[in-house]
Amino acid sequence: MPPRNKQGYALAGVDIEAASKIKKTIARQARATFQPGVLNFGSFGSMFQLQEYEQPVLVSSVDGVGTKLKIAALLARNDTVGIDIVNHCVNDILCCGASPLFFLDYIAMAKLLPEQVKDIVSGIVRACKEVNCSLVGGETAEMPGIYLPEIYDLVGFIIGVVEKRNIIDGSSIVSGDVVLGLPSSGLHTNGYSLVRRVFGIDDNPSILNKYYPRLGKTLGEGLLVPHRCYYRELEPVLPLIKGLAHITGGGFQGNISRILPRGLVARVNQDSWDIPPIFKLIQREGSIDPEEMHRVFNMGIGMAVVCSRNKARKIAAALPQAKAIGEIVRAKK
Amino acid sequence: MPPRNKQGYALAGVDIEAASKIKKTIARQARATFQPGVLNFGSFGSMFQLQEYEQPVLVSSVDGVGTKLKIAALLARNDTVGIDIVNHCVNDILCCGASPLFFLDYIAMAKLLPEQVKDIVSGIVRACKEVNCSLVGGETAEMPGIYLPEIYDLVGFIIGVVEKRNIIDGSSIVSGDVVLGLPSSGLHTNGYSLVRRVFGIDDNPSILNKYYPRLGKTLGEGLLVPHRCYYRELEPVLPLIKGLAHITGGGFQGNISRILPRGLVARVNQDSWDIPPIFKLIQREGSIDPEEMHRVFNMGIGMAVVCSRNKARKIAAALPQAKAIGEIVRAKK
Repeated sequence: MPPRNKQGYALAGVDIEAASKIKKTIARQARATFQPGVLNFGSFGSMFQLQEYEQPVLVSSVDGVGTKLKIAALLARNDTVGIDIVNHCVNDILCCGASPLFFLDYIAMAKLLPEQVKDIVSGIVRACKEVNCSLVGGETAEMPGIYLPEIYDLVGFIIGVVEKRNIIDGSSIVSGDVVLGLPSSGLHTNGYSLVRRVFGIDDNPSILNKYYPRLGKTLGEGLLVPHRCYYRELEPVLPLIKGLAHITGGGFQGNISRILPRGLVARVNQDSWDIPPIFKLIQREGSIDPEEMHRVFNMGIGMAVVCSRNKARKIAAALPQAKAIGEIVRAKK
Repeated sequence: MPPRNKQGYALAGVDIEAASKIKKTIARQARATFQPGVLNFGSFGSMFQLQEYEQPVLVSSVDGVGTKLKIAALLARNDTVGIDIVNHCVNDILCCGASPLFFLDYIAMAKLLPEQVKDIVSGIVRACKEVNCSLVGGETAEMPGIYLPEIYDLVGFIIGVVEKRNIIDGSSIVSGDVVLGLPSSGLHTNGYSLVRRVFGIDDNPSILNKYYPRLGKTLGEGLLVPHRCYYRELEPVLPLIKGLAHITGGGFQGNISRILPRGLVARVNQDSWDIPPIFKLIQREGSIDPEEMHRVFNMGIGMAVVCSRNKARKIAAALPQAKAIGEIVRAKK
């Protein structure tokens, strides 16, 4: 077992030479993400100096990529799942009004493959740079007897900050407020277990290379489109927003209900946006009930924005892709 | 796929009823850890209000438990691995002088077993309470096709804080400084892949139930002793300390070298403490070279403290279990 990495990116159970090479690569990759505030990349803890805030509230989230990882591993295209996990995490804390500060990752597998790790980290770095988030640490663990061969797990942990007075939590939402939807780029990181079943991917991975004219790409390419990040476009209009719901597992209704005050529901007009071809393809192939589709998948809306009627125009002007998709109403007793 | 949990502890790919029961249980468990500062257990991000600091430095770490998890799963004793992961994380950020603020976990497995998750979380909660650390969120993921059956992975993320002027980073260490060692409770979380091989545990799990008179317990009990936490005992003497090294993978030399300024090494007298029986047993059973033993295992010292000669007495008085085990000297050119 090798010494832990002196640059704070630890590796366990890996032969020393491979570990040494990988940790140098990761350190070089991570350095490109450093923002002011990063005091070290390493020692036992990663140190980040918080800049001045009056009442800083730290907003954190942990997420996995789920079995989208399996698609990536089957296609040996591992340079986008890092984008998925960072963007998922960034979107989650954005729902509280927070800006990202720093990120840590955990990569685990049965047998460490250096090129695979490098590709995974390259995606993390790319997405972190997009939002000025510093990759300050991580752990890479080789765990035979726990993971199936050739497959890995990828977990992300993010810390962001918001001034207490700027927290967005949905508490000011009232009946009559407007729901805007921002388009997703694809499945994001949800519904992959169902998709694997529908297309029999585990038994017949070659179907991932099948070209679907309606998608304009192969099934694999369609499924691996990275999770979209909403931080850059939403950050300027956060002061105008009452609530944000990241549409992940549970679909639209499952997520919008997480931010609504008791007694209110979102009445959504499902005809107000076009369902992207990838979802129609899945639905047709699997003969899936429309209701189940909407519960499992984002169906084309990746982030819901709730605002007052008189702010909606201003927000829509700043977000050309936003569509008015519904309104907040009182729940029926 | 179920709606995400409204209490912010997300579950993926689990049947709705089981998920609902588990999330309620986890929420109840986590609530016992809440300290002032916790603003919510949930929504999309977990919010924690930082109390007043002049120059707050956030110290973070991510760690896994490694294949100690396999021992726990084989014995169906899953209520201590949560202690392992929390204490590992707390010790890591303690090495920078930081006090824990909050913790998030990630639990993933092929098939979610509610009792297993409850047991895992109970250990996390117990260890968090010990150090006033709040369990503010987590993710439980069911990922068939990635994990082997019955086994799980457990990852911990911690955030702590230290005033910038109180950072401990080893930079003031000079030749002549003293190295004190604090005893470990056992293997902590390192060396389990080697131990599994030495005892052939994967092929013959029943050996875990074998009683070893020298241990005064079964092999399984000896291997599952939780990772010791050093926060409570070290916190009062942090101002007297120049450097702290958490002895994990890489053993004593591999870790102490992480905090020493260039040109300095630790000269350790390996006869200055008694090697606990568990390590002697492993060495004998596996006919392992002593040098390898010291590289893989902590060998009875879980935390190394570096201080000036004139502070050593004061620290030793406050830490009855501390032993002077070596000194800092110039490296030979």
